[in-house]
Amino acid sequence: MKKVLIANRGEIAVRVIRACRQLNLKTVAVYSTADRTALHVQLADEACCIGPAAPKQSYLNMNAIITAAKLTNADAIHPGYGFLSENAVFAQLCAEHNLTFIGPSAHVIALMGEKARARETMQAAGVPVVPGSKTEFNDQQQGLQAAIALGFPVMLKASAGGGGKGMRIISHEDQFKESFTLAQNEALHAFNDNHMYLEKYLPHPRHIEVQVFADKFGNAVALGERDCTLQQHHQKVIEEAPATILKPATRAQMFAVSVKAAQEIGYVGAGTMEFLLDDPDHFYFMEMNTRIQVEHPVTELTSGLDLVTLQLRIAAGEKLPSTINHKIAQGFALECRINARTAGKIQALHLPAGYGIRTDSALYQGYQVPPNYDSMIAKIIAFGPKRQTVIQMMLNALDETVISGPQTNLDFLMQLLAEPAFLANTTDINWLDHLTAN
Amino acid sequence: MKKVLIANRGEIAVRVIRACRQLNLKTVAVYSTADRTALHVQLADEACCIGPAAPKQSYLNMNAIITAAKLTNADAIHPGYGFLSENAVFAQLCAEHNLTFIGPSAHVIALMGEKARARETMQAAGVPVVPGSKTEFNDQQQGLQAAIALGFPVMLKASAGGGGKGMRIISHEDQFKESFTLAQNEALHAFNDNHMYLEKYLPHPRHIEVQVFADKFGNAVALGERDCTLQQHHQKVIEEAPATILKPATRAQMFAVSVKAAQEIGYVGAGTMEFLLDDPDHFYFMEMNTRIQVEHPVTELTSGLDLVTLQLRIAAGEKLPSTINHKIAQGFALECRINARTAGKIQALHLPAGYGIRTDSALYQGYQVPPNYDSMIAKIIAFGPKRQTVIQMMLNALDETVISGPQTNLDFLMQLLAEPAFLANTTDINWLDHLTAN
Repeated sequence: MKKVLIANRGEIAVRVIRACRQLNLKTVAVYSTADRTALHVQLADEACCIGPAAPKQSYLNMNAIITAAKLTNADAIHPGYGFLSENAVFAQLCAEHNLTFIGPSAHVIALMGEKARARETMQAAGVPVVPGSKTEFNDQQQGLQAAIALGFPVMLKASAGGGGKGMRIISHEDQFKESFTLAQNEALHAFNDNHMYLEKYLPHPRHIEVQVFADKFGNAVALGERDCTLQQHHQKVIEEAPATILKPATRAQMFAVSVKAAQEIGYVGAGTMEFLLDDPDHFYFMEMNTRIQVEHPVTELTSGLDLVTLQLRIAAGEKLPSTINHKIAQGFALECRINARTAGKIQALHLPAGYGIRTDSALYQGYQVPPNYDSMIAKIIAFGPKRQTVIQMMLNALDETVISGPQTNLDFLMQLLAEPAFLANTTDINWLDHLTAN
Repeated sequence: MKKVLIANRGEIAVRVIRACRQLNLKTVAVYSTADRTALHVQLADEACCIGPAAPKQSYLNMNAIITAAKLTNADAIHPGYGFLSENAVFAQLCAEHNLTFIGPSAHVIALMGEKARARETMQAAGVPVVPGSKTEFNDQQQGLQAAIALGFPVMLKASAGGGGKGMRIISHEDQFKESFTLAQNEALHAFNDNHMYLEKYLPHPRHIEVQVFADKFGNAVALGERDCTLQQHHQKVIEEAPATILKPATRAQMFAVSVKAAQEIGYVGAGTMEFLLDDPDHFYFMEMNTRIQVEHPVTELTSGLDLVTLQLRIAAGEKLPSTINHKIAQGFALECRINARTAGKIQALHLPAGYGIRTDSALYQGYQVPPNYDSMIAKIIAFGPKRQTVIQMMLNALDETVISGPQTNLDFLMQLLAEPAFLANTTDINWLDHLTAN
């Protein structure tokens, strides 16, 4: 492996370029016409335009990306996150073109990409999943019996569902008939399919995820967990490591099942096992992300490991270093995602720095934030001895940040960090949506 | 302690402001007319102009600074490094005005400021000093006997000396007479004093320093050592922590004598014991710096401690936290000092960031670097598992740095980092001067 094409943009493309440099790998940036002057284009050794601004025509354009790799003699592709990073077809295409896809095999990506199969696979590997009905059903009486067996409250879901359609929380037996009828009708209209299934409803779950790494020789480790409970409209807003509410025994169990599952499915590279935690003792598998995550820096800071160079080394065929064991976090790290609410030119820029502060971004003064892509423009990460200290560091870091031009969520983040429930760490994944709905 | 005036400018003023914020202390910046738009002025809660650009009339103007503190109701003064930070008269003046000087007492500053007294004091406290003649002398024969007793090579120095005047390295008995005559004449002309003394000449010493901290209750700790061997014209250029060439037993001994000495002189706050190391086993006290050092971040990264908030807490009367013990470095940190070789406006700016990179600076795009002050405009610090990895990280960080406008030493630093002797860690304090003389 000598030259890596980075099939992404923004801060993650910059992050991957820096990791390649560290390993003396040459880099190829790809860019849409909207990103001609982007930082990742300036930092890479070479750069190829792959199409117009629309993602489908550039960053999701598999053929253009493979062609760029071939033209530049790149021998590997790092997909970053988003875009093609969890696309099994693309991973397969890379393999067919003798390009090392920096991630797991197409087969594993596909397996984890289909949520129902992933759930079954994990259950078979001994990973707890949210309890639910054994089979799907379209008969109300059958549903009720299953709900009683499961115990209320339950979550009724459409088998073919998505986007919240055909979904109902049912708290009591008395409400079952009415809710079932409404949900099934909704499902029938939305998906032309009236099959339903049940899951145990978790009223106040937290989102805890485990960072796993596996090599091509069957070795796997858990490098720590992250608490990503603070979400808005299913988007993570603030991430932490470690999850300070976890009991050590629960953490150890999460690590153990995550590593075992990664090994059983033949996982290779960086992956994240996402869990819901409904009380300090019980966790349930939600899904596995088969790529590096936005929030990987909090794990880097608390584990002392460079996760992106580790991805590259594993993809190049190295074994997991024998010095890397399951990691219990040292210190505490917090990440805030800085989002642009409008596009526009960065007129003045001051990003925080100094003791305990890391900023991952692709911003520079004079940069034009394009309207075509994800709104996240920077990540600010604070690291220190304990949660309370680090929250104060983050507040100060956000307070000194100047990003003038586009509107941002800086003030919103500062308000969040001062919320009593956040400070007391008593939130759940619905908390922020409730807060902002009021 | 509620409001701290920072009697400094540049990156260290920014560093202190951030530390104050962390402890919810209000901040007052002072500035010369050349620094009206400086970052420290923008970041502080309040700011006072204290005079014209010339340091004597502003940052060294004690009365103007005390007046600014009184006008703004500041109750403490952080002197940073340089300027008034090791001025006993200023520390005394603060005390007389009921302002907490964030540093040791005026008495201790004076004691360590007079190099001969400091040396005697340290010797009495059991700290090894460079072996030398017991007394000064103006007679050549007396000098020769002392040199023979000490063993050649020796360093002949003028008692009243400074700046290299009246100084000779004498390698052999045969050269003594001639060298003595020349040096003594030089001393007589320069200082109107022909008294001379001898020190054992160390041909290839390294500069190793120990970070000590002491509280008002007699507790003291060593928080790690730094290797600052890479110097040009007696100015540090690159600093490291830990000193990887140190034997553990030598390190432990350095820590022990440093802590004992700090306790014996009644030291309070952050201090640095500077040593020369002439082989892996032998070290000699050179001087003590009674302030925070430019290179403190390498110790922060390898100890996990925020040294500037620790200074503030100790000055406010707190005890050294019981969790803080002598620190053996975790990982490896490297700092490069970025200097401006010319003044001028920063036209474009990209400072490195991301995994393992910390940048301490007061730069921003559009900032006018004034010609009046120290040339150091930024510090780039890299932190990782081991020296070789971190050198590569630093090379990449310097390589991506853009500071357009003033001339800088970025290219020079990158060349240095690639020098075989630096990579092999076989340099001494004279190495860089020899290298650049060729």
